[in-house]
Amino acid sequence: MSVDGRSLVAGEPVEGGAGTRRAVDPATGAEFGPDFGMVDDSTVREAARAAHDAFDTFRAQPPDERAAFLRGIADNIEEIGPELTARASRETGLTTARLENERARTTGQLRMFADVVARGDALGARIDPALPDRRPAPRPDLRLTRVPLGPVAVFGASNFPLAFSTAGGDTASALAAGCPVVVKAHNAHPGTAELVGQAVARAVKDSGLPGGVFSQLFGEGTAIGQALVADPNIRAAAFTGSRAGGTALMRTAAARPEPIPVFAEMSSTNPVVVLPGALREDAARALAAEYVGSLTLGSGQFCTNPGLVFVPATPGGDAFVDAARERVAAATGQTMLTGPIHRAFESGVEGLAASPGVAVLARGTRGRGPHGPAPVLFGTDIAAFTADPGLQEEIFGAAGLVIRYSSTDELTGALESMEGQLTATLHADTASAEDTAAARALLPVLERRVGRIVFGGWPTGVEVTHAMVHGGPFPATSDPRGTSVGSLAIDRFLRPVSYQNAPDELLPPALQEANPWNLDRRVEGTLVSGGER
Amino acid sequence: MSVDGRSLVAGEPVEGGAGTRRAVDPATGAEFGPDFGMVDDSTVREAARAAHDAFDTFRAQPPDERAAFLRGIADNIEEIGPELTARASRETGLTTARLENERARTTGQLRMFADVVARGDALGARIDPALPDRRPAPRPDLRLTRVPLGPVAVFGASNFPLAFSTAGGDTASALAAGCPVVVKAHNAHPGTAELVGQAVARAVKDSGLPGGVFSQLFGEGTAIGQALVADPNIRAAAFTGSRAGGTALMRTAAARPEPIPVFAEMSSTNPVVVLPGALREDAARALAAEYVGSLTLGSGQFCTNPGLVFVPATPGGDAFVDAARERVAAATGQTMLTGPIHRAFESGVEGLAASPGVAVLARGTRGRGPHGPAPVLFGTDIAAFTADPGLQEEIFGAAGLVIRYSSTDELTGALESMEGQLTATLHADTASAEDTAAARALLPVLERRVGRIVFGGWPTGVEVTHAMVHGGPFPATSDPRGTSVGSLAIDRFLRPVSYQNAPDELLPPALQEANPWNLDRRVEGTLVSGGER
Repeated sequence: MSVDGRSLVAGEPVEGGAGTRRAVDPATGAEFGPDFGMVDDSTVREAARAAHDAFDTFRAQPPDERAAFLRGIADNIEEIGPELTARASRETGLTTARLENERARTTGQLRMFADVVARGDALGARIDPALPDRRPAPRPDLRLTRVPLGPVAVFGASNFPLAFSTAGGDTASALAAGCPVVVKAHNAHPGTAELVGQAVARAVKDSGLPGGVFSQLFGEGTAIGQALVADPNIRAAAFTGSRAGGTALMRTAAARPEPIPVFAEMSSTNPVVVLPGALREDAARALAAEYVGSLTLGSGQFCTNPGLVFVPATPGGDAFVDAARERVAAATGQTMLTGPIHRAFESGVEGLAASPGVAVLARGTRGRGPHGPAPVLFGTDIAAFTADPGLQEEIFGAAGLVIRYSSTDELTGALESMEGQLTATLHADTASAEDTAAARALLPVLERRVGRIVFGGWPTGVEVTHAMVHGGPFPATSDPRGTSVGSLAIDRFLRPVSYQNAPDELLPPALQEANPWNLDRRVEGTLVSGGER
Repeated sequence: MSVDGRSLVAGEPVEGGAGTRRAVDPATGAEFGPDFGMVDDSTVREAARAAHDAFDTFRAQPPDERAAFLRGIADNIEEIGPELTARASRETGLTTARLENERARTTGQLRMFADVVARGDALGARIDPALPDRRPAPRPDLRLTRVPLGPVAVFGASNFPLAFSTAGGDTASALAAGCPVVVKAHNAHPGTAELVGQAVARAVKDSGLPGGVFSQLFGEGTAIGQALVADPNIRAAAFTGSRAGGTALMRTAAARPEPIPVFAEMSSTNPVVVLPGALREDAARALAAEYVGSLTLGSGQFCTNPGLVFVPATPGGDAFVDAARERVAAATGQTMLTGPIHRAFESGVEGLAASPGVAVLARGTRGRGPHGPAPVLFGTDIAAFTADPGLQEEIFGAAGLVIRYSSTDELTGALESMEGQLTATLHADTASAEDTAAARALLPVLERRVGRIVFGGWPTGVEVTHAMVHGGPFPATSDPRGTSVGSLAIDRFLRPVSYQNAPDELLPPALQEANPWNLDRRVEGTLVSGGER
């Protein structure tokens, strides 16, 4: 494979006539080749049209074939392994080891969705047979299956160049649902995007699918993305990025003549609540070490970075804060993903440092290169925190705010005042009656505000499984009913259709009497096994 | 029970200080008592606050108790049977027989949701056990269940004073999910709303639940409804009504500091496609009789009224149209629900009659009273239909438009140009190769545009079952992923939450190791039976 700087429209490379842009090595700030051609609105329309034209063919694909297609993408990504991770490392400043893990996660989630597709559960097939003798009128035969929404616009994230980007979770779940995908590549890792895009396009071709099943566009600024979400052939959008970017897409989607669903994963400070019992004796120092490890991991560039930690005003709490100060003071900055991300971090840190009632508790050492800012630890108390909603705002990077509290009531009040979050974390001594009572009081508050509740751990490290939720109330995401990680992510791209008195041969296979796909189906509301698959 | 003209806030009657309004008998145009007190914004805030305060208690209710609560509402509605249907008939002009059916549907759907709640499937419990020996890092224990969104604002519909109103499908599914409900009563049937509201409030009290689980407000115009959807304590809204009303709520919900989901069921012309084979010999006349029956049923005041019929330019098609003309010409108008609905019908009919290429094929006789307009049948050809998007607009009432077509390609083109719909209907002779080929070509187009595809019948008559979809792409609804009829309607009000490494005693019962609710749960993605329930 080679990086040529070209978009892909329905399997064909496209040069793009709206200027060029090059990748930047954030470790040095230097640009490097090739030139990536930026496309204009006409190419957006072309890609969306091709996706529309491919839709009916793609969605008719039987489960086994679609599963093979998804596994083919995973195989193709593995095949370009070292070339891909080398390019990605240079474009993002992330280590090759981290990117190898991320590649495994990316191929793993494609294969997980292949299994989900092969199993067919996500179709949610339901059958209510006719009741010809019902009085006063017979009941018709009713059968329900879920169908894909249509072409999906996917926006790659800067911080996961593989797992949340061109062939990341959004693309994998949309393709698994039967939705063609048009990716707006992230300009922070264009070569990585191009290599993965080629891997996907090759799998499309090898599966005999129409090229429009997958396109990827390079574009300047936000105009191309807005045009994509506004395009009438696009039926849903998936985005991971900033709150400003996500809400702009939400507005565009809502203002269309026909509004479409947007799944934007945007902003979260992932509160961690430490209860007094979790800080007994030596526990405080060990917990602080874990905290700073999670805070500074990957330069703090995770959606699930623990931005806020609530610590009790107890001797154990003091020990925790002292140990966290030492750890942060001893930490060295790592290269951030891009110059703009680095600048946004510095500006967030400056703003927080200037906030009334907030103190800088510790500052680490700058890392090498132009974009390796020092990790920072801030402290405040719960009164100042509750008084200033600005203290809830996410600072993307290794900056943490420790909030000291005196009582569970104070804590509950502060958490009630918070916006929606991806995660909340509880550290408690479950052998302590006080901690357990406090945890019971806090849980309903957290459940109303977050998508995942972590006990005794840290929010970074999102498993890709069936029971994972990476979502949550606004502004964590645009729609609390979805997740962008785990097998449930496919639900975002499906909608139910009911067939009334349809002749068997005109029914979708999922609903035919002979059950050719051996699906588990709900008959009169009760699940009936489809047998061996 | 008595009709006192009062709103209900958290179980207590509220007079309302923003003027009064009386019910109108549409058969005579005369107002009748009592005076209904209109509330202002402060009462909206009170009701929403009470719903919020009741939420944590209500959602913690075990499945059996919630099922009993829903059955209690159904029992209470049955208890006020004749009083309720008499009042509803006078307020709406609908016959007592129709309202008795509708009452049975209302109590039936409450009991269906009771069964769904008792079964617990809708929680979608998933468990991915810890893998302590996984390399390079152990996997934590992950468990997922769905939790209710929070207080829901429900807007009663004019055309189903029982089944889509105070305790209709939206309220039943929201309560089943564990969401408190605040109903904005429809002013077209205030006494009906009050009687049903009392029945719900009595069940809330008898179940020992906090009063805030249910409130119902009478309010003037649209301001109260907008205030309700804008209230920070409201977390979702469900609406059945006009496109203008639904899109206004969508805008309000999207403009909130924290946007919320809106399920608005708005506008549908429910295209019926008649293929040539379905019109052989005597079939045309019989089909036309069925068509006019569905078109004029209940004065055409159904969301699923067959507003558009595509008929081939064949002798069979001519026979169908001739027979439909005769039937419509012989039909007598029935009283519409309200004066404004009647005026909107007349204005829609005038507009369609003045459209280029549209002819009035037949007009029936006006019914008795001020609001019983004559049914009307219009005709046009597919070129005129495709040229003027205005011809797709819903006329709420007994007005049908017959569109003649010459080829399947023409038909496909016209259907491709249509907006989203609740239903599409196909009449075909499945013994005919031509019809079957045409049906196969049309089905993918219809699947992309509608929520329910009816074969060989008529779209009116929406069964309340597990496999029903009463939903569809915009403008049929605001979100194509939902249904407002059938057991799947509960999904609209649930969102997933994941628990990582939670101590068993702090987990929701749905996820505890002992499975105290005997739920079927998905373990590592595979469904495991919860045993006898």
